[in-house]
Amino acid sequence: MPTYKAPLREIHFVMHELLESESFYKRLPGFEDVTRDLMDAILKEAARFSEDVLAPLNRQGDEQGCSWDDGEVMTPDGFAAAYKQYVKNGWASLAADREHGGQGMPNLLGTIVNELAGTANWSWLMYPGLSHGAVKTIESHGDPDQQRKFLPKLITGEWTGTMCLTESQCGSDLGLLQTKAEPQKDGSYILSGTKIFISAGEHDMAENIVHIVLARLPDAPAGTKGISLFIVPKYNVENDGGIGSRNNVLCTSIEKKMGIHGSATCVLNFDEAKGFLIGPENKGLACMFTFINTSRIGTAIQGLAHAELSFQGALSYAKDRLAMRSLAGPVNADGPADPIIVHPDIRRMLLTQKALSEGSRAFLYYLSQLGDLVDAGDEERARKANDLMALLTPIGKAFVTESGFEAANLGIQIYGGHGFIREWGMEQIVRDARIAMIYEGTTGIQALDLLGRKVLGSGGKLLVGFTTILENFCDENLNEETAAFIDPLKRYKDEWLKISMEIGERAIKDPNEAGAAAYDYLMYSGYIVLGYFWARMAILSQKKIGSSDTSFYEAKLITAKFYFERILPRTRYHCESISSGAENLMDMPADMFSI
Amino acid sequence: MPTYKAPLREIHFVMHELLESESFYKRLPGFEDVTRDLMDAILKEAARFSEDVLAPLNRQGDEQGCSWDDGEVMTPDGFAAAYKQYVKNGWASLAADREHGGQGMPNLLGTIVNELAGTANWSWLMYPGLSHGAVKTIESHGDPDQQRKFLPKLITGEWTGTMCLTESQCGSDLGLLQTKAEPQKDGSYILSGTKIFISAGEHDMAENIVHIVLARLPDAPAGTKGISLFIVPKYNVENDGGIGSRNNVLCTSIEKKMGIHGSATCVLNFDEAKGFLIGPENKGLACMFTFINTSRIGTAIQGLAHAELSFQGALSYAKDRLAMRSLAGPVNADGPADPIIVHPDIRRMLLTQKALSEGSRAFLYYLSQLGDLVDAGDEERARKANDLMALLTPIGKAFVTESGFEAANLGIQIYGGHGFIREWGMEQIVRDARIAMIYEGTTGIQALDLLGRKVLGSGGKLLVGFTTILENFCDENLNEETAAFIDPLKRYKDEWLKISMEIGERAIKDPNEAGAAAYDYLMYSGYIVLGYFWARMAILSQKKIGSSDTSFYEAKLITAKFYFERILPRTRYHCESISSGAENLMDMPADMFSI
Repeated sequence: MPTYKAPLREIHFVMHELLESESFYKRLPGFEDVTRDLMDAILKEAARFSEDVLAPLNRQGDEQGCSWDDGEVMTPDGFAAAYKQYVKNGWASLAADREHGGQGMPNLLGTIVNELAGTANWSWLMYPGLSHGAVKTIESHGDPDQQRKFLPKLITGEWTGTMCLTESQCGSDLGLLQTKAEPQKDGSYILSGTKIFISAGEHDMAENIVHIVLARLPDAPAGTKGISLFIVPKYNVENDGGIGSRNNVLCTSIEKKMGIHGSATCVLNFDEAKGFLIGPENKGLACMFTFINTSRIGTAIQGLAHAELSFQGALSYAKDRLAMRSLAGPVNADGPADPIIVHPDIRRMLLTQKALSEGSRAFLYYLSQLGDLVDAGDEERARKANDLMALLTPIGKAFVTESGFEAANLGIQIYGGHGFIREWGMEQIVRDARIAMIYEGTTGIQALDLLGRKVLGSGGKLLVGFTTILENFCDENLNEETAAFIDPLKRYKDEWLKISMEIGERAIKDPNEAGAAAYDYLMYSGYIVLGYFWARMAILSQKKIGSSDTSFYEAKLITAKFYFERILPRTRYHCESISSGAENLMDMPADMFSI
Repeated sequence: MPTYKAPLREIHFVMHELLESESFYKRLPGFEDVTRDLMDAILKEAARFSEDVLAPLNRQGDEQGCSWDDGEVMTPDGFAAAYKQYVKNGWASLAADREHGGQGMPNLLGTIVNELAGTANWSWLMYPGLSHGAVKTIESHGDPDQQRKFLPKLITGEWTGTMCLTESQCGSDLGLLQTKAEPQKDGSYILSGTKIFISAGEHDMAENIVHIVLARLPDAPAGTKGISLFIVPKYNVENDGGIGSRNNVLCTSIEKKMGIHGSATCVLNFDEAKGFLIGPENKGLACMFTFINTSRIGTAIQGLAHAELSFQGALSYAKDRLAMRSLAGPVNADGPADPIIVHPDIRRMLLTQKALSEGSRAFLYYLSQLGDLVDAGDEERARKANDLMALLTPIGKAFVTESGFEAANLGIQIYGGHGFIREWGMEQIVRDARIAMIYEGTTGIQALDLLGRKVLGSGGKLLVGFTTILENFCDENLNEETAAFIDPLKRYKDEWLKISMEIGERAIKDPNEAGAAAYDYLMYSGYIVLGYFWARMAILSQKKIGSSDTSFYEAKLITAKFYFERILPRTRYHCESISSGAENLMDMPADMFSI
C-alpha cells in the first residue's frame, strides 16, 4: 500500500490562500473564533491520526474484510480500537451543532478531516461517515424528545447511525419501496421489511446503532409521495437515554463486494421492529432532501481521496522504478536505466491524477464553505449559497467520483504488472473507488438532477448564478499574463449557456432529449467547473511566484496549464455528443437489442 | 455471473458477410478446403464447449483461485478436467501447422475459438493460450531435433508452454534482464535466475510445461542486444520424446491479483536448470518479434471478450430490472415501473458496449485474416498484409483492451449497486479485464510502437498503406445513402495523415514530442479504425435491409450511427491533446512533483 502522507501544504493552499478561510469565518456568525491557528492545529492532529492510526489498517482491512456470524458483524482487526480513539479524541462531534453537544466547527473543517481519514482508509470512514445522515435527519426533523434521546450519543460517536433506503427491488427508484410501518396505540410504529446495501448497518464498534428507515404507512399513497421516515434503534432507548431491550432488527447477511471490504454492507431484516415517525407523514423524501447536498459532498470526497492516494503511490513508484532511457538523453547515466518519471506518457498519467485531485480539492472545499453559508449566513447569502450548492453538488458528486476512479486506474497503469498485484495496494484503490460512482445516487441520477431539475427546472436561473461568478472572475482578472486561462474560460462559459438553452428547446419537444444529453452535460460542466478552479489557482500562483515557496506555485501553474491543454479539451467530445441528440439512443427498439 | 451465449449470428456476420471468409480461404494455398460449412460446424462445437463447460467454471474459479503448496500449483476445481476435454477434442491443435501435427485451420478460426472460450472463462484460456508463444518460437527458430522433441505434444496440448520474460527489475525494459545461461560441454546450458509474472508457469493440467526463457550468455552485450532464447522444460525430455527427470525450475510462489484469479501467475526460480539455446545467440528479442503480432492479437481478444460478456450481462439486466418511468410515457403501464432499458442513459451505456464489442470483433477478425495472408499468401500479398499488421496490431492490442475495460465498467454501472456485489459477476469482468491493458506490452508501450516505430519509423509508409484502403473504400462507396459514414471517414483520413506529419516534424526537433503524443495518437487512430469497420458494416447492412433478417441489419445500422455520432467524436479531444505538444508534460522538473 502506498504510505499515505497528509498533503497539508496543498490543503493549506486551498483553505487559506484560495478560499481565505480565516477572514471568511470571521465574518460568519457563530464562527468568529475559528482562526487559522485553530484550524491548522486541528488538521495537524487529524493528519497524524490518519497517517498513524487509520492508514496502517487499510490494506489488511481489505484482505480480512468483515465477517458475519448469527447476526453479529465483526469488523477487521484494529477498526474498533481506532474508532474508540476517534470518539475519545472528539473527532465525531467536530462539525456538529453546539446545541446537542457538537463542537460547532465549520463544515469545511469536517470535510477536510473526512478527506484525511478517508484517504487513509475509506472503508473505516464509512462507520462514522454514515452517522451524518442520521444526525442531520434528527436535527432537522426530530421532535425535542427524539433529539434529546438520540442526538447526544450520535454526535459524540458513542452510537452510530445509518440511512436505510434501498430494498432489493428499488434503488434509484425509491417510489417502489415496500417496507411497512403500522401505527401503534402508544404512538410508536411497528416496521416490517428488508433493507439491503445498508452501510454500517451492523458492526462491533459502538454500543447502539440508530437506523433512519424509509417505510410506508398503511394508507400511504403509491410512489414517492407515500414514504415516511422512522427512527429504529438497534437497542431501544430508555427515557433517560440508557440502553434498553434489543429491537427486532437483525442483520441477516453481509455482501461480498468488489471493494471497501472493511465496510460492512448489510441486509437488515425489520421483523416488527419498533420505530418512531420522524417528520410529517408521507414527507420522508422531502425531509431527506433537506440535507442531500451535504451527504453527496461526503461521497464526492471519496473521489478526491482515491485520486490523491493513487497519485501518492504512483508518484513514489515513478521516481524509484528504472526502465529505459529518457528520449532526450539519460538523466541517470550511472544507473542501469532512468526513473520512469522521465517518460512523457508516465508524466501524462501523473499530471492527470494531480490535476484531477488538486482541482477536485478546490472544488469540494468551496462547496463545503457554501454549506457553511447556507447554515450560518444571513438570509440573502444563505439563499445564494443554497442556489449554488443546488447546481454544483450533483457535479461534485458525479464528476469528482468519476475522476477519482480514472485517477486510481492510472495509478495501476503506472505500476505496470505490479499494479495488478494486491500486495502493492494500487488495485485496491480502484476497487474501493468504484462504488463511489454508484451509491448516494449514480452518475446517471446526478446527471438527471443537474440537467433536469437544476438547470432546466430553474429555467436556467441556477446556471446563470454560477456563470455570473465565472464572468465576473474573468472580467476582474483578464490581462496579458492570465489570458491563457481567462480566454478559454470565457468561451466555455458562453458555450455552456448556449448548449443549455439548446437542450432546453429540444427537451420541450421530446423529454428524452434531456435524458440523452444528461451524462455528457454533467461531465462537460464538471470540466468547466474544474477549469474555473484551476484558473483561480493559477492566477493566484502567478501572483505568488517570487515569494518564499516559489516552486510550489510554479508547480501549480504548470499543472493548470496541463489541465487547460490536455484535460479541458474533453469538453469538445462531450459537446458533440450532446449536440447529436436523442435519436441515436432511442431509435433502437428494445427487442432489437439481442444476442 | 451473466449466462454466456456465444454470439454466433454476430460472428457469422463478420466472418462470412463482411470478410467473405469462404472465398478468401478458397484463394489461399493450403486452405482451399476450409468451407463455410466446415468453419460453422467447428464454431458450433466451440460455442457448445464454451457455454456448457467453460462458462460454468468462471465465477467459481474467481472465488476459489489457484493455490500453491511446496512448488505445486492447484488450479480451481474443474479447470483440469475441462482442459483434458479440450485436448481430447483437438481444440489445441486447431490452427497449428500440419507439419507438426496441427490441423492447419486458419488463424481466423483460432481467433474465434479463443474469443468464445475466453469470453466464457478468460482465466482458463490462459493455460492453453500461453502455449502459443512457445509453439511459435520453436516452429520458427527451433532446430529439427528441438521441433521433433517438443512440438508434437505442445501442439496437441498434452504439454503446455510459457514465455518467461519478466524479472522483478524489468518488465517493459527487457534490456535490464539478468537471468544467466552458462554453456555446457554437451551443448546444453545451465540457467539461473528468477522470473516473475509467468502465466501458467506451474499448474496441474498437463504432464509437462515447456518454458521459453530469455537469458544472457556469459559474454553477452549489455541491454537488449545481449538476450538469447532458451527452451527449459519442467521435466527433461528423453530422446524418444518421453518424460525424463525433473528439471531445476521451481515455482516458489503465485501472485494474489486483482483479477483472473483462476490463472496461476508464477514466480519461477531457475536454479541451474538445464536449457537449450533456440535461435542464434544474442538474437532472442528479434526472434520473439517474429510472432509478436499474433501474440498481441491474442491479448486483444480479451478486450473483445470482456466487452461482449459485460454487454450480455448488462442487456439482460436492463430488460428485467424495473425502475422509474420512461420520460416519454410508460411502456409497462401494468407493472410498478418500466424496464430500465427505456432510459436514454442506460441505452447510451448499452450502445457503447455494443458498438465497442462489435466493432472490435470486425477489427480483430480482419487482423487474423491478415495473419493468414502473412503465413500463406504469395509474396506480394504476404508483404502487404505484414505491413498492415505491423501498423494495426498495436492499435488492436491497446485500443481494444482499453475499450474492453471501459465496456466492462459500464456493465457495473448499469447494474447499479448490484454491479459492485460479487455474486452478480459483473465486477469480476472489470477485475479480469484490467490486466489486458498491461501484459503483452502496456498501452503506453503499444503507443510508442505505433507512433515511433511504425508510423514515424516507416516515414509514414505503413500509415499510408492503410489510409489508401480507407480512401479506396470511401471512393467506391460514396453515395447519398452512405454519406453519413463516408463523409466523416474521409475527413478523418485526411486529418490522420496531417496530424501524423505534424508530430513527425515536431519529433525531429524534440524526441519527447513523439512520446507526448503517443497515447492520444493511438486512441485517436483506434477510433478511426473502428470507424472504418463500422462504416463497412453499416454499408453492407444497408444493402441487406429487406432480406430475411432485416432487424439484425437495422440494429447494425443504428449502432453504426450511434458510433459515428457519440463515440467517434472522442477523436476531437485526442486531436487537441496531441496538438498541445510536449511542453505541458515535460516542463515540470521531477522534484517539483511532490506531496
